[in-house]
Amino acid sequence: MSSEQKARLPGEDYVLGLDYGSDSARAVLIDALTGETAGVSVRNYPRWTRGLYCDPAANRFRQHPQDYIDVLEETVRELLAGREAPAKKVRGIAIDTTGSTPCAVDGEGTPLALKEEFAENPAAMFVLWKDHTAVAEAEKITRTAKTWGGTDYTCYEGGVYSAEWFWAKILRVMAEDPAVAAAASSFVEHCDWMTAFLTGVTDPNHIKRSRCAMGHKAMFHRSFEGGYPSRDFLRLLDPRLIGIRETLGTETYTSDTSAGPLTGEWARRLGLPPGIPVAVGAYDAHMGAVGGGVKAGVLVQVMGTSTCDMIVGPIPEAGEVPVRGICGQVEGSVVPGMIGYEAGQSSFGDVYAWFKNILMWPLEQVLPVLDLGEDVKRQVAEGISRKLIPVLEGAAEKLDPRQTGLTALDWLNGRRTPDANQLLKGAVTGLNLGTDAVRFYRALVEATAFGARAIVERFREQGVTIDEIVGIGGVARKSSLVMQTLADVLNMPIKVPANDQSVALGAAMFAAVAAGLYPDIPAAQAVLCPPIEKIYRPRPDQVPVYNSLYKLYQNLGAFAETLA
Amino acid sequence: MSSEQKARLPGEDYVLGLDYGSDSARAVLIDALTGETAGVSVRNYPRWTRGLYCDPAANRFRQHPQDYIDVLEETVRELLAGREAPAKKVRGIAIDTTGSTPCAVDGEGTPLALKEEFAENPAAMFVLWKDHTAVAEAEKITRTAKTWGGTDYTCYEGGVYSAEWFWAKILRVMAEDPAVAAAASSFVEHCDWMTAFLTGVTDPNHIKRSRCAMGHKAMFHRSFEGGYPSRDFLRLLDPRLIGIRETLGTETYTSDTSAGPLTGEWARRLGLPPGIPVAVGAYDAHMGAVGGGVKAGVLVQVMGTSTCDMIVGPIPEAGEVPVRGICGQVEGSVVPGMIGYEAGQSSFGDVYAWFKNILMWPLEQVLPVLDLGEDVKRQVAEGISRKLIPVLEGAAEKLDPRQTGLTALDWLNGRRTPDANQLLKGAVTGLNLGTDAVRFYRALVEATAFGARAIVERFREQGVTIDEIVGIGGVARKSSLVMQTLADVLNMPIKVPANDQSVALGAAMFAAVAAGLYPDIPAAQAVLCPPIEKIYRPRPDQVPVYNSLYKLYQNLGAFAETLA
Repeated sequence: MSSEQKARLPGEDYVLGLDYGSDSARAVLIDALTGETAGVSVRNYPRWTRGLYCDPAANRFRQHPQDYIDVLEETVRELLAGREAPAKKVRGIAIDTTGSTPCAVDGEGTPLALKEEFAENPAAMFVLWKDHTAVAEAEKITRTAKTWGGTDYTCYEGGVYSAEWFWAKILRVMAEDPAVAAAASSFVEHCDWMTAFLTGVTDPNHIKRSRCAMGHKAMFHRSFEGGYPSRDFLRLLDPRLIGIRETLGTETYTSDTSAGPLTGEWARRLGLPPGIPVAVGAYDAHMGAVGGGVKAGVLVQVMGTSTCDMIVGPIPEAGEVPVRGICGQVEGSVVPGMIGYEAGQSSFGDVYAWFKNILMWPLEQVLPVLDLGEDVKRQVAEGISRKLIPVLEGAAEKLDPRQTGLTALDWLNGRRTPDANQLLKGAVTGLNLGTDAVRFYRALVEATAFGARAIVERFREQGVTIDEIVGIGGVARKSSLVMQTLADVLNMPIKVPANDQSVALGAAMFAAVAAGLYPDIPAAQAVLCPPIEKIYRPRPDQVPVYNSLYKLYQNLGAFAETLA
Repeated sequence: MSSEQKARLPGEDYVLGLDYGSDSARAVLIDALTGETAGVSVRNYPRWTRGLYCDPAANRFRQHPQDYIDVLEETVRELLAGREAPAKKVRGIAIDTTGSTPCAVDGEGTPLALKEEFAENPAAMFVLWKDHTAVAEAEKITRTAKTWGGTDYTCYEGGVYSAEWFWAKILRVMAEDPAVAAAASSFVEHCDWMTAFLTGVTDPNHIKRSRCAMGHKAMFHRSFEGGYPSRDFLRLLDPRLIGIRETLGTETYTSDTSAGPLTGEWARRLGLPPGIPVAVGAYDAHMGAVGGGVKAGVLVQVMGTSTCDMIVGPIPEAGEVPVRGICGQVEGSVVPGMIGYEAGQSSFGDVYAWFKNILMWPLEQVLPVLDLGEDVKRQVAEGISRKLIPVLEGAAEKLDPRQTGLTALDWLNGRRTPDANQLLKGAVTGLNLGTDAVRFYRALVEATAFGARAIVERFREQGVTIDEIVGIGGVARKSSLVMQTLADVLNMPIKVPANDQSVALGAAMFAAVAAGLYPDIPAAQAVLCPPIEKIYRPRPDQVPVYNSLYKLYQNLGAFAETLA
């Protein structure tokens, strides 16, 4: 990597960002000088779309590795088709994925489901981040960490190990299928497997593991001897984990560095120059935060069904101190050289979707029994489904916060931060006969904003500075009601960038740094971050109102905690 | 009144019950020997139906006295048309009305709105029970009663004087219109005015005031000197009330006695025999309780938008003791010779209607903006409105109470009993992403049942025995979900009589006793109460579940009280 920016011209250097979300992957081609998007291509995972290998009722969500390969080839080829000149000038690739999404691999780094004998076996596939089959295993890890008498390895991950994370999922897969357990030489995160096969690394011991993935979800921390939880600790969980640990090495890598050069074969298959650097992988929210402009003092909220709140801070001279009740903190996980903090709300857009589901009940359960044509019923149900949230938001925006008379709690999917507690539930108080759907909805929007405030306040209490918020993701771009409420509740400006591919754009920035086009992430961000499209500013007359209502939210929250 | 039952034959003696509800009046003709209903006639109040004299946004609800006269003539004539033989054998009439529903009258007992100069003046009309314009006046009465240093005249009315009651409404009318106040010789409850004009009593001082109305709503109690609050107390509220008090006399009358004989003129206008006794009037819920079979140990719940819970108990030898936090208790108000207790929930059917309104929001606010024919939209909205509650109930009945995971509070219109507090609100806890409309609805039904349990428990704590419940009114006959839930929550059988005119039937029983056809109300009930159509019995497996859930309800209630 060069230490200073090269003199370049527009159209001379491109980078490729690949973003693997929960349902689809997208590839973006970015001009590395201007940040201009030269092209975007999106594909849904074919097997996943057909519902294969999943059992939503049991919270089992698995993805087949072949899905990832298929969409890789399709998106990149589509992206580069007709763009032969830029394709030749791609200087680097970076990939983000969901996580923790690990998979069992054999001694050659191949996910077991790519082998004939495991091709249809969900235990041999990637265990998607939201798979919750490992609840018992996660509890065992937390309990063991608190009681075994040695280091509490969960201390940089909020103190509670989650069913969504690496080691719990490994234990679960081993319990699910002894044949898979026996055939597994190692387990690899989705983001690390992508870089491994693109760079031709087959030995699991040589895969460059992501600092972000391992630090946030696998209890890697540089202060631990050997980086990971000790053999003695792992033995208490399952002796087979000791062997898995051996394959992880003792170091992890930040995504501004190259995992290796793109192999000739993959260069040919994708239509890219061979030998270009493939950056070390990371999680989508973390690269998304970089694409959204995260820096010290700027919290990036990735707002979808749930939120991921990412911020960075300097490494304290006196040494790193765990922030109490926050999901995780890892040096270099977001911006290399700084501590990356991850928080988030377990349900955000899902809260609004829940209320929509309630309101759609008559259309789904009563409309069908009416004596009307099927065509009419379909038109009515689809029409109302499409317009419901816009009409609701329009009406809710006209209300003053004092008018609802309601206090709601946003914990409809438990609470991720601050102080993870999956047993907590949502609530509403203040209902009277005048409470209509609009007031109810507005109270829910306010509740999600209060949930965000609780996170911001916790960060501040623990010494992490937050001056400004950037919102990216679906909700940030679609709902002015939510965004204005957030600004009023947080008493901070909320900025929304003019780019709905912030995550892939963040990946492209890592590709640019790994390729030496920028000296570091802040330099790349300074040039490549998209302009701010909209700023929601707190309204001075609303701020004190919400300060009062927030106390009611806290009061209701304290009561709800006594119920869990 | 004879002291023993006469020997009679079917078809020889009839009685007429007249029931004046909030929106309509009904007349029933009953065979006094068999209890068989010979005919029913119902009419809506014509001016009220057109929305005249009311301002719902300001909670102002007034009814024109001419409405009462019009429906009296129409219902009775329709009832007797083609029934000339029974009409000649009508032995007595009794009338129940809503209340407290008082009106200003002149020196000849004529409601002021029947005089030309006040014909369109709402202050000169009957102030319907649910009119809430007198909130400030009611608070003044309660405050004065607690602080003036003399007797607390609210002690037999639960300790809090309501905006819905007699003296508060008089103060309100006086404040609204000085001309009405100046022209008012007295104020008369709707039920008392009916008997006055049918018996030709024009001097307000001679109107036989109802024990039920005056005892429950005008602070009449035999232990108070002169029966009513003292002149000194009334002077603190408004000196003009002293003159009103003078017109009330010092005694009140139970409805098993005659207010006087039917005048010749009204006998001719209605087609009835002249001179038959017109029983002293009472409120609808109280006569309804008698129709429903109220007696010691049997609570009758009149279940509509709200509930009225009526029970009677013996007069303690050691003297009457106020039951804490219950709306009112009056000797002779329900069954003469016993103490009548009145309690109730401020919202019951209204809670279910509220949730229906929430669910209908998309049909009312989103459907209209769709590009579909007006006819189709109307069919969809009406069809869903009609079927929504039945489909919801059917689905909710299939759930086990443990399955909702919710605790709800039924105070959507405040709490009437126990411990009246209009500031309390409804609430729901335990919401998660799996909470659907059916679960939400079931939790609301459980909440209303828990509200009923709180009343039953309070009665028992204070020494009033309750062994059995009789449910009458719309909800009791329509919702097996609500009734079964009540039985399970209360761990008591709930009986539903086979008659949807229980209130008018109760009036007919009073007519029969006043006419001397039965020696007293229990004797009339023994013969005339309709058979029980359905008994909901507590399910032994559900009772302990609800005992646990009731604790959660109480816990949530205690929290909600801290918010009011």
